Amino acid sequence: MEAPDFKDFAKSMVDYIANYLENIRDRPVLPTIEPGYLRPLVPERAPERAEPWTAIMEDLERVVMPGVTHWHSPRFHAYFPTANSYPAIVADMLSGAIACIGFTWIASPACTELEVVMLDWLGQMLGLPEQFLARSGGEGGGVIQGTASEATLVALLAAKSRMLQRTKEQHPEWTEAEIVSKLVGYCNKQAHSSVERAGLLGGVRLRQLRPDDRHRLRGDAVRDAIDEDIRNGLIPFYVVATLGTTSSCSFDALQEIGEVCRERGVWLHVDAAYAGSAFICPEYRYLMAGVELADSFNFNPHKWMLVNFDCSAMWLKEPRWVVDAFNVDPLYLKHEQQGSAPDYRHWQIPLGRRFRALKLWFVLRLYGVENLQKFIRNHIAQAHLFEKLCAADERFEIVEEVIMGLVCFRLKGSNELNEELLKRINGRGKIHLVPSKIDDVYFLRLAVCSRFSDDNDIHFSWQEVKDAADEVLKTHKDK
Amino acid sequence: MEAPDFKDFAKSMVDYIANYLENIRDRPVLPTIEPGYLRPLVPERAPERAEPWTAIMEDLERVVMPGVTHWHSPRFHAYFPTANSYPAIVADMLSGAIACIGFTWIASPACTELEVVMLDWLGQMLGLPEQFLARSGGEGGGVIQGTASEATLVALLAAKSRMLQRTKEQHPEWTEAEIVSKLVGYCNKQAHSSVERAGLLGGVRLRQLRPDDRHRLRGDAVRDAIDEDIRNGLIPFYVVATLGTTSSCSFDALQEIGEVCRERGVWLHVDAAYAGSAFICPEYRYLMAGVELADSFNFNPHKWMLVNFDCSAMWLKEPRWVVDAFNVDPLYLKHEQQGSAPDYRHWQIPLGRRFRALKLWFVLRLYGVENLQKFIRNHIAQAHLFEKLCAADERFEIVEEVIMGLVCFRLKGSNELNEELLKRINGRGKIHLVPSKIDDVYFLRLAVCSRFSDDNDIHFSWQEVKDAADEVLKTHKDK
Repeated sequence: MEAPDFKDFAKSMVDYIANYLENIRDRPVLPTIEPGYLRPLVPERAPERAEPWTAIMEDLERVVMPGVTHWHSPRFHAYFPTANSYPAIVADMLSGAIACIGFTWIASPACTELEVVMLDWLGQMLGLPEQFLARSGGEGGGVIQGTASEATLVALLAAKSRMLQRTKEQHPEWTEAEIVSKLVGYCNKQAHSSVERAGLLGGVRLRQLRPDDRHRLRGDAVRDAIDEDIRNGLIPFYVVATLGTTSSCSFDALQEIGEVCRERGVWLHVDAAYAGSAFICPEYRYLMAGVELADSFNFNPHKWMLVNFDCSAMWLKEPRWVVDAFNVDPLYLKHEQQGSAPDYRHWQIPLGRRFRALKLWFVLRLYGVENLQKFIRNHIAQAHLFEKLCAADERFEIVEEVIMGLVCFRLKGSNELNEELLKRINGRGKIHLVPSKIDDVYFLRLAVCSRFSDDNDIHFSWQEVKDAADEVLKTHKDK
Repeated sequence: MEAPDFKDFAKSMVDYIANYLENIRDRPVLPTIEPGYLRPLVPERAPERAEPWTAIMEDLERVVMPGVTHWHSPRFHAYFPTANSYPAIVADMLSGAIACIGFTWIASPACTELEVVMLDWLGQMLGLPEQFLARSGGEGGGVIQGTASEATLVALLAAKSRMLQRTKEQHPEWTEAEIVSKLVGYCNKQAHSSVERAGLLGGVRLRQLRPDDRHRLRGDAVRDAIDEDIRNGLIPFYVVATLGTTSSCSFDALQEIGEVCRERGVWLHVDAAYAGSAFICPEYRYLMAGVELADSFNFNPHKWMLVNFDCSAMWLKEPRWVVDAFNVDPLYLKHEQQGSAPDYRHWQIPLGRRFRALKLWFVLRLYGVENLQKFIRNHIAQAHLFEKLCAADERFEIVEEVIMGLVCFRLKGSNELNEELLKRINGRGKIHLVPSKIDDVYFLRLAVCSRFSDDNDIHFSWQEVKDAADEVLKTHKDK
């Protein structure tokens, strides 16, 4: 494909994209196809000869769109939001054109340096302590990871290597395998599944602790667990505090946990994947009080801050525990400026990395902090609107305090009734929700996700929930 | 940013991109700035208010471009190529607009299903055995990973979990920690640094074995190492065979290694990150003879097949060893069609994943197999042209057989002389190369990287090397 064709194709795609997004409400949010729908729609093999780009454009509605779950529809309330914005899309175009691999500083200095500065911008927007920021001149700094799962794993591996070194110093007679077999980490039972998975991947034990009755992990629970394990000869090394759990968006008691971690010399990682974006609004920072006690902090601008996936922002006070632990240094990756700027390949699991800082730069400049704050506050207000509508209907109950853009609710009654309600809602095909369950109580989660969402959409979604409830309750009455 | 502004901005970026790429030869391939150059060029904080998109466009040449290493310049010969093509850039635009997170089938069926089919297309193009392909109806199938490093790690973790289970069955009295401490993997001493790193991350021993005098890992070396370790009570579980090493693009003896792995019940992973793309040309498939003996196979279309980063294609015969090993299954990720299509979240380290199959689809259709083959063959022919020019100059020697698009060469003489040569070449600023070293012999690597590269560019680069050599040798003579 030559440049003139590219220009036509790309500009045609720009129009298609604008049209897709601006009219996304009109599409059914969930596809109705069955597994295996796509294979018969395309040839069995790649074509021998080049096709014209118009053939691709014609196939989008025929092949792709029938199988797309429209995450950016205001009718989409599942999981948590994933970001999508025009500035981020354009930034990714440029990133694709430059297409450098920023594994070391010399491999493309702009890629590393813009990332260093953007993570400083972002850290300041959140009010992170200076110790986390590169601008402080200390060791600390930020990095863009692909996902919060990777950040959790990187933090776990850093914590593991720190504790290995400390323990070896105290017990030079112990083998590494012995030490690893004694390591134990901790998180809220309601922490994201990726925390458990990081433990599995890292080959260490991870204890899921019982939260309080508001589903917050508290300092006492962590202290008791740590002290019990120490008595049993184990070595506590890592705690994950979650700010905004996936199941119900509850917030662990960071200050309390941080004090315990500091006393016991345990690495504290903060996973604020979804809710972290809200800390750009000062009125929500009370939820991250104690962050100065953490060793690493992570949130996903690619969830709720209009920066397209993947852009998971992570800060470390002492990146050396990651950098030194897995440092392999072949000649073809060495360069003369080593040490004077971060070589981000040491900070992450993969070697290669895209120029993702462009997305942050474009979004922060083209929205400005003010509009990003407005965006967050709007979503939270819409969640409260849904909460109000729901609470006013006496058939329903709200099962968790609404703090961010997530409402957890259920029909008063059995789990089965609520499973039926969810099935009915998703079956009607107009809105999409996923469930959650805490302590055997099954409930529905409504997340405000779309950049296009407004109060009318919330009324629409509530009407859908209500209508589905009418149907379910009628069936039950008729039985 | 609203749709009309987006259209203007994106179309302006399309023109900028075409202009950048079509004239990329005119830019100095390596930036001349010093570490820290960027920070003074941008404000200390994110702006409070939105800026116009024109402000961004104006800053590209001022802030970003001075710090870019132009990987797509025909003057860029460092590392290995990373892909860049117009169809892939447009596909990523669409991926950014749909912006679904394809962690499960239901989360966006098209994202999963197009990936399944594209990995089948690609596998057929390479002539992979049917057992690796989903179309066979068996368990096997492909997946897009972010990088070859992740594929190596995923394969290692799968191999680890398979051997753990087997060993537990034979020795139910052994603890998991004991077993892990006995596990040992193997690779060529010349294997990529990410293999060593996968061992570190996975917490297992990895032995780097000595290759033969053509830098190929041979079956005997693997057999001897495995048998030695078994005698010493260790448990061999994993071998990585490299097809196209980074240091000199040599090819491990896959058939021999495969037979050893089959005899000893050890997982064989094939890392063909760079060279794998060449297997779309039947005349190069002799280099992957024995692939049917492998358990997993990986190559990077994002290196040499015109699909922008990140797109690392991996096939597994028995994905269940990954899927089951780290399967965490929270309610909010369950769906009714589980089991009837892959839920790719189980196949990878992160949870989230972009709609990357679009890039493959666009590239394969808009180039066609024929043009992709032509592209590969052109690069290899250009490498042979450089080889010929270099070999005809009696001051130089070729240090490794040229098989793909990489030429390894040096001035006859000391390592110091060649270090000086490289410094001189990169210092002149017209072309960019990185060095390598095998068995204490330091040499230069010239990789043909750019999609825009033609014979004239090779003559240009050779002239640069020759001129730099003239300078270096003159200095030495004068001393």
